[in-house]
Amino acid sequence: MAKYDYDLFVIGGGSGGVRAARVSAGLGKRVAVAEEFRFGGTCVIRGCVPKKLLVYASQYSEYFGDAKGYGWSVKPAHFDWATLIANKDKEISRLEGLYRKGVEGAGGEAIMSRATLLDRHTIRLDAEDRTATADQILIATGGRPAAHDALPGHEHCISSNEVFDLPELPKAIVIEGGGYIAVEFANIFHGLGVETTLVYRGMQILSRFDNDLRKLLHDAMVDKGIKIILQSVQKEVVKRKDGRLESRLSTGEQLVADQVLLAIGRSPNTDGLGFENAGVNIGQMGEVIVDSYSRTNVANIWAIGDVTNRVQLTPVAIHEAMCLVETLWKDNPTEPDLEVIPTAVFSQPEVGTVGLSEERAVQRFEHVDIYRAHFRPMRNILAGRDEKMLTKLVVDGQTGLVLGAHILGPDAGEMAQLLGISLKAGLSKEDFDRTMAVHPTAAEELVTMYKPSYSYRDGKRLQA
Amino acid sequence: MAKYDYDLFVIGGGSGGVRAARVSAGLGKRVAVAEEFRFGGTCVIRGCVPKKLLVYASQYSEYFGDAKGYGWSVKPAHFDWATLIANKDKEISRLEGLYRKGVEGAGGEAIMSRATLLDRHTIRLDAEDRTATADQILIATGGRPAAHDALPGHEHCISSNEVFDLPELPKAIVIEGGGYIAVEFANIFHGLGVETTLVYRGMQILSRFDNDLRKLLHDAMVDKGIKIILQSVQKEVVKRKDGRLESRLSTGEQLVADQVLLAIGRSPNTDGLGFENAGVNIGQMGEVIVDSYSRTNVANIWAIGDVTNRVQLTPVAIHEAMCLVETLWKDNPTEPDLEVIPTAVFSQPEVGTVGLSEERAVQRFEHVDIYRAHFRPMRNILAGRDEKMLTKLVVDGQTGLVLGAHILGPDAGEMAQLLGISLKAGLSKEDFDRTMAVHPTAAEELVTMYKPSYSYRDGKRLQA
Repeated sequence: MAKYDYDLFVIGGGSGGVRAARVSAGLGKRVAVAEEFRFGGTCVIRGCVPKKLLVYASQYSEYFGDAKGYGWSVKPAHFDWATLIANKDKEISRLEGLYRKGVEGAGGEAIMSRATLLDRHTIRLDAEDRTATADQILIATGGRPAAHDALPGHEHCISSNEVFDLPELPKAIVIEGGGYIAVEFANIFHGLGVETTLVYRGMQILSRFDNDLRKLLHDAMVDKGIKIILQSVQKEVVKRKDGRLESRLSTGEQLVADQVLLAIGRSPNTDGLGFENAGVNIGQMGEVIVDSYSRTNVANIWAIGDVTNRVQLTPVAIHEAMCLVETLWKDNPTEPDLEVIPTAVFSQPEVGTVGLSEERAVQRFEHVDIYRAHFRPMRNILAGRDEKMLTKLVVDGQTGLVLGAHILGPDAGEMAQLLGISLKAGLSKEDFDRTMAVHPTAAEELVTMYKPSYSYRDGKRLQA
Repeated sequence: MAKYDYDLFVIGGGSGGVRAARVSAGLGKRVAVAEEFRFGGTCVIRGCVPKKLLVYASQYSEYFGDAKGYGWSVKPAHFDWATLIANKDKEISRLEGLYRKGVEGAGGEAIMSRATLLDRHTIRLDAEDRTATADQILIATGGRPAAHDALPGHEHCISSNEVFDLPELPKAIVIEGGGYIAVEFANIFHGLGVETTLVYRGMQILSRFDNDLRKLLHDAMVDKGIKIILQSVQKEVVKRKDGRLESRLSTGEQLVADQVLLAIGRSPNTDGLGFENAGVNIGQMGEVIVDSYSRTNVANIWAIGDVTNRVQLTPVAIHEAMCLVETLWKDNPTEPDLEVIPTAVFSQPEVGTVGLSEERAVQRFEHVDIYRAHFRPMRNILAGRDEKMLTKLVVDGQTGLVLGAHILGPDAGEMAQLLGISLKAGLSKEDFDRTMAVHPTAAEELVTMYKPSYSYRDGKRLQA
């Protein structure tokens, strides 16, 4: 008889945990995954997927506006939040079922319960009032919106957990934060007709992205009517007698809104999981500390995904899961490769980016050439919309290596995905130049930039 | 005094001719370009650009339909063809002006006249009733829709020249042809509410494309209500007393329509240009015969673009122009590189393709692996639309080289452009696999296909 109930016990049924469980079970391992809330995790239940569905919904107002220049007369359309949310919920439930079935179909066990560690091989399953033992344990409990207890009135605010299930669409919303979640929701609510204000303590939204991109997205959002207040934080949120909220800013401004969304960061889910019983080390941000193979300080306990606070992205968690399968079961210790990760921000216009920003490249390379096109995408011309698109390549002038690619505009996320292949493979500007254009597309700008727009030598921008 | 009036005389103000003229003028050469119709050529005036504007217009009917699942109530929208065409014309005129200004701004001369050759160095300019001499002459006269004089009633039909300026939107249209022009217009007219029938003599639309792609596009078009009649041609087009047209097919079917569009191919523009005076050789299809450097049999006369009937694409003409500039003026003879050209068909769903089709790959390679995903893009789910997307990689199983990439679905053209970089650079499936996904996108399917869907050995498909 086996020494343990399971070869692998996974705590957390999100993208990383389910992938590790499903593939391990497919290899014949005895696997269980415990989830206390809903299978699918942040991505499926209250992250990437429902977010993108809301983005799609919010884009229609621009489509309706753009249609006129193309000869269409459209009467003002009515938007019903409840319909969108009901349809979204249906799709989310479908995906949730697929995640669960994926585990079970591969021969794994999907357990609806909170799971806590009793020791390095024993898990307590609250909902089933039992314990289980496992040879290997994987912590994939993900993260949650960071709390903001220091803000007086924070109890009146919502996070990105609640935003997907608001009973009704607010007339006005204040969003605090400058990361991709804050920016995406600002665009979603604006597109759905909500008076939207973004409050961010930093100098510019989307820190760490290419500055050019940040500035142009900021300008585009302001142009379409989103209010952005930078270098400011909320000092207090007060509930008024009429039920609306008053947001008092550090700048002295006062905003009135029906909802205040806090999107100031995310924290790893490591509280109350019994890690101390197993001796698992936790870092200063509350994250599970792992080595380059996703192993904790306890030899049979591993952690992947947002709970490790490495790179908080679904595909990264999945990649870490696939590497772990190699390491655990195939005698092939594999480190996740977290270099050159393409990403998207589903703002409007959309952001797609991979590799180094202009600023980082200039810090690291002696000779940097910037190729940049800033143009009105064809669709916007008849639509009468001034919004421009940015396509930009950051190139090492000495080797020709494309160090970074940054897109602002329609389909930027799709473009970042495919540019990611080229940058990951270390292609050069010459490889881009040798590629025939596809006309008319926006992406053709990326293969038809014959001369640098400007250059740097030793960190200094050259005069044109 | 110089021996000739010009260093370079370009006949034809389309994309290829204007590029050659502009860049040559920018190098200080004495350059003229003569255009008898409108600067911009097929691409700008009655090709790529207006076509894509019509595609955008025609997509709105699906957007309006899709909006409901996202919570929007939209009243039936009214479409006005005249508004679209007027707005299209305005944009086309703007671009035409830019093309002309591009030549003049670089110091070249833009001449509105038909130009014919009197001898190998002398050009007659009809509109100015004068002659001019030039050291080098470039023929860039493009192509035109192939005539179909053998069809009784062809005089009642229109071509892709007239289709952009129809006085009114037909209620019903018959389109004969199976190439990208026929397919694109079938989708455009259908999207604008026109009862659309496509008649094509071949077994399947879009010959030479990947068969899988062809079949799926065909099915998607039929599903949305476009009638496609294959293995059939028009035998006669008759004008009825009520002014409508009757199209009689080889299959015996009779169709009634308000317009019949012939899109059965394109012919090079070489008639009546005096090529016999200069001794320029013309091929069987009427094309100017050139060597790999775009030189005709006459040493100082060159030809680029559609008139050479190599690859009839705007970016190819531009590429040939840029190579010619190297050859003519920089002592750097450069052959156009026409290998691995990515292309798009702006059908609905859109096609993007680069490299070898499955069928060609199987003919050329012993071991071929096909990676294929066929899925409903996320946007279609809440929209309640069944239309699926195809992403497909054709891989040399022995080297891992990605031989072909084929996309059917939203933004396929943008994707083909960027996949083109990877395929042109000879990247392998492993390079795709090493790339982190961007979630949620459609393009992520291209980097997350872990196992071949099926394989071939020595031309035979293996049993799964």
